[in-house]
Amino acid sequence: MFPYKTIFHLDRNGNQALYLQLANQFIQLIKERKLVPETKLPGSRILADLLSVHRKTVVACYEELLLQGWVESIPKKGTFINSNLPELHQQNFIEKDILSSDNKIGFNFYTDISLERSFLKPKEGFMYLNDGISDARLTPTEDLARTYRRICSRKDIYKEMSYGSLFGNEKLRITLADYLNKTRGLNIKKENILITRGSQMGIFLSAKLLLQKDDNIIVGQTNYTSADTNFLQRNANLIRVNVDENGLSTDEIEEICQKKSIKGVYVTSHHHHPTTVTLSAERRIHLLNLAKKYNFAIIEDDYDYDFNYNHSPILPLASHDTNGNVIYIGSVCKTVAPVYRIGYIIAPSSFVNEAANQRRFIDRQGDALLELTFEDFIKSGDLDRHIKKVMKVYKSRRDLFCSLLKDNFSDVFSFDKPKGGMAVWLTLHKKYSWKTIAKIARKYKLEIGEWRRYDNAKIGHNAIRIGFATYNEEEIYELMSRLSMIFNDIKSQEFTKFT
Amino acid sequence: MFPYKTIFHLDRNGNQALYLQLANQFIQLIKERKLVPETKLPGSRILADLLSVHRKTVVACYEELLLQGWVESIPKKGTFINSNLPELHQQNFIEKDILSSDNKIGFNFYTDISLERSFLKPKEGFMYLNDGISDARLTPTEDLARTYRRICSRKDIYKEMSYGSLFGNEKLRITLADYLNKTRGLNIKKENILITRGSQMGIFLSAKLLLQKDDNIIVGQTNYTSADTNFLQRNANLIRVNVDENGLSTDEIEEICQKKSIKGVYVTSHHHHPTTVTLSAERRIHLLNLAKKYNFAIIEDDYDYDFNYNHSPILPLASHDTNGNVIYIGSVCKTVAPVYRIGYIIAPSSFVNEAANQRRFIDRQGDALLELTFEDFIKSGDLDRHIKKVMKVYKSRRDLFCSLLKDNFSDVFSFDKPKGGMAVWLTLHKKYSWKTIAKIARKYKLEIGEWRRYDNAKIGHNAIRIGFATYNEEEIYELMSRLSMIFNDIKSQEFTKFT
Repeated sequence: MFPYKTIFHLDRNGNQALYLQLANQFIQLIKERKLVPETKLPGSRILADLLSVHRKTVVACYEELLLQGWVESIPKKGTFINSNLPELHQQNFIEKDILSSDNKIGFNFYTDISLERSFLKPKEGFMYLNDGISDARLTPTEDLARTYRRICSRKDIYKEMSYGSLFGNEKLRITLADYLNKTRGLNIKKENILITRGSQMGIFLSAKLLLQKDDNIIVGQTNYTSADTNFLQRNANLIRVNVDENGLSTDEIEEICQKKSIKGVYVTSHHHHPTTVTLSAERRIHLLNLAKKYNFAIIEDDYDYDFNYNHSPILPLASHDTNGNVIYIGSVCKTVAPVYRIGYIIAPSSFVNEAANQRRFIDRQGDALLELTFEDFIKSGDLDRHIKKVMKVYKSRRDLFCSLLKDNFSDVFSFDKPKGGMAVWLTLHKKYSWKTIAKIARKYKLEIGEWRRYDNAKIGHNAIRIGFATYNEEEIYELMSRLSMIFNDIKSQEFTKFT
Repeated sequence: MFPYKTIFHLDRNGNQALYLQLANQFIQLIKERKLVPETKLPGSRILADLLSVHRKTVVACYEELLLQGWVESIPKKGTFINSNLPELHQQNFIEKDILSSDNKIGFNFYTDISLERSFLKPKEGFMYLNDGISDARLTPTEDLARTYRRICSRKDIYKEMSYGSLFGNEKLRITLADYLNKTRGLNIKKENILITRGSQMGIFLSAKLLLQKDDNIIVGQTNYTSADTNFLQRNANLIRVNVDENGLSTDEIEEICQKKSIKGVYVTSHHHHPTTVTLSAERRIHLLNLAKKYNFAIIEDDYDYDFNYNHSPILPLASHDTNGNVIYIGSVCKTVAPVYRIGYIIAPSSFVNEAANQRRFIDRQGDALLELTFEDFIKSGDLDRHIKKVMKVYKSRRDLFCSLLKDNFSDVFSFDKPKGGMAVWLTLHKKYSWKTIAKIARKYKLEIGEWRRYDNAKIGHNAIRIGFATYNEEEIYELMSRLSMIFNDIKSQEFTKFT
């Protein structure tokens, strides 16, 4: 008889049920042709005795093999290895190799080398720079969870839990239309809204609908990297225009329009990403006029509308768009917390319909339970109260952050104190490089991150964007202290070099 | 003076704050050149009196205009319309036209005519056919919400709430790897898992990584429509092979591989979508051997693994893959409820890394709070208990559904009772057409839906897929009664036709 007792190794403390362990080992033996077709298997009682397992385990194993077609049962004769199984060609049979992290792969796939590829793993005691993120410690997480649970207790909530609208929950669309009309001067109905998973999906869908190979899209000389990547992945031509203290140069956009057909202009009008400048009123009108004349779309990404410290927020381009040129993108991710992936596209309804159609093939639909939670959060006024609360905190963090930067690092950094948003655009003195700083920073447990991404066009501005909103007062002091040590280190190295 | 009193119309019961209404009407007047550059605006007190509003409203309005750059303030002289504003060219200024649902649009975008375009709105009293969905009334919604809230109350939960892993929550990946190893015979680590938003995103990302223009992908003659669409959107060639009672014809796949280079085979091995047949063991081995020999990927979409009524589920192809050829896709959407958009891709880690990279540009990341909720749900054994519970219910629904169909409609339908899943593959007698039935069904408040999508290859099989799991006993009887009325109606029309 086949040496079952020697060959089978069952792990009684293992995670896999015994019958499955047994079945899988049988399958391996069959695939390796150690058990050849038409071999008769021992009776369940005999095998159970041999392996010291319960007979039921062997019966379950045989049933599994039967169902999977590895064996066949011939009445009154017994169980046999299936006679017409082809041979499985395998190089090795060590179980741990199966789909393991050793990265064995039997097919080719496309990789996009243009993509950022950093997967930073948080390290104990390290501080991480970010490009302007809200502080999740200020999020009313428990309030939102309470609302979520209340909504889930509704008697008829099951109606919202199946495959539903591609556009997002209808109640949220109605409430959001009303809220944006009131607060941002829009004049929209729910038909103009597609609920997305944050701004990112809004950019993705807009790019997909607007751009095909060799289509032209205009962006800033500096621009939000993820937007650039989305456009490039459509194989579109990225045409860059300068950005000055009034935002994108609309004169340059006009010159381009005179020569080429343009499908769209991507603009972060409120606070340009990454430089934080605001698009001036003149340029806003100019841009809207150009869009009308040259029939292109303005993708207005209003990613941090809510945060203005010196005045009320400036109304978006979308609020002045009478010709249907603006695709307006926003989200609650910056305002509440990134974990809540709820954003929106506001556009003419024909565009919204097609975007919804395309969305079906990405993730089918949103999370109606979370969408209803935010419907309640907005309608109850809690969102506005939250904004009011964090605005005060972020304003004082900005003030402290900027004054410390100014007092201690004026010889290495130059910057304008931002009027809004959650980040400072920090230009490094030409004699220093972010590369060196990033390297030395790790010694002082500070992670600078992907500084290169702020200069996609490789113009050498030597600036990066640093968020201040995530740090409380103590952490701001700590960050500045680490920066001090880093620059002391760098300066002493220089000093050594010249002596 | 300019007739402010006549021209301004403020809606005191409106949703928009008065100062914003006022500011927006100013902006319109400026854009229409009814108020020309360098015009001096009346003092705030005077305008407040004219319009019978509080002076603070006018001050807030002027501040808004100033900030937006529409007016300029000259010390000791007053507020003037900005002198260097370009003219805004607009066709009309009726506010309701702005981005309204009248669908005015000022740019062109691409539409994909291949997409399904039905947005069915539920109508009172109607029954809707589906292609196999779980019954959300059986979902432990409140238990999950309680867990969600408990997780949100954790002191350090804020750490999970910012921008996080592109791969999904690490705890869930560890728990899921363990769970799938135990229940599906896999042998994976967390590095082999990308958490997605349901199977749909898994298919989307796989298509994106595997396929470019003119690449070949093999699918069934009948196939899941959304998968077909995803592959076609990559401009790939869809090569169809026959599906019989043993699933995809692997002999045909071999013939194709001998002639052409193939990037992948999409297979719903457990229950073929839409016909519900299971891929036989011989073909499983054959397919794995072909993948190894010809170096292609097998996209194994195991969308309803958990539901088998006659035996335990059949282990996926991925459990026998020693060569790294299988991309295994699954989700909890069918098992728990579609609203919980949590799915996964299991693949060699190099593929998972690139998929995570691409995912960044779609929706950035998943919902860590929901992911942690499901981590708890799986680890605690609640998921398994839930599956056990609903299995019993769905089995008895299947039995009732199929026996009523057999007893009452054997002259119009033929079908095999499915061994698993949540749907029946129902072939209509050739003398009837789904088109007619769908039309007449509406009279009896039954919506058949997009029956055409089950025959993408236009082979004329005259069959559709009907889910039984969403209906309780009473609803199954109700559905059958409506079907009876529909066929009586059709048959009596035929009768009339021939007399």
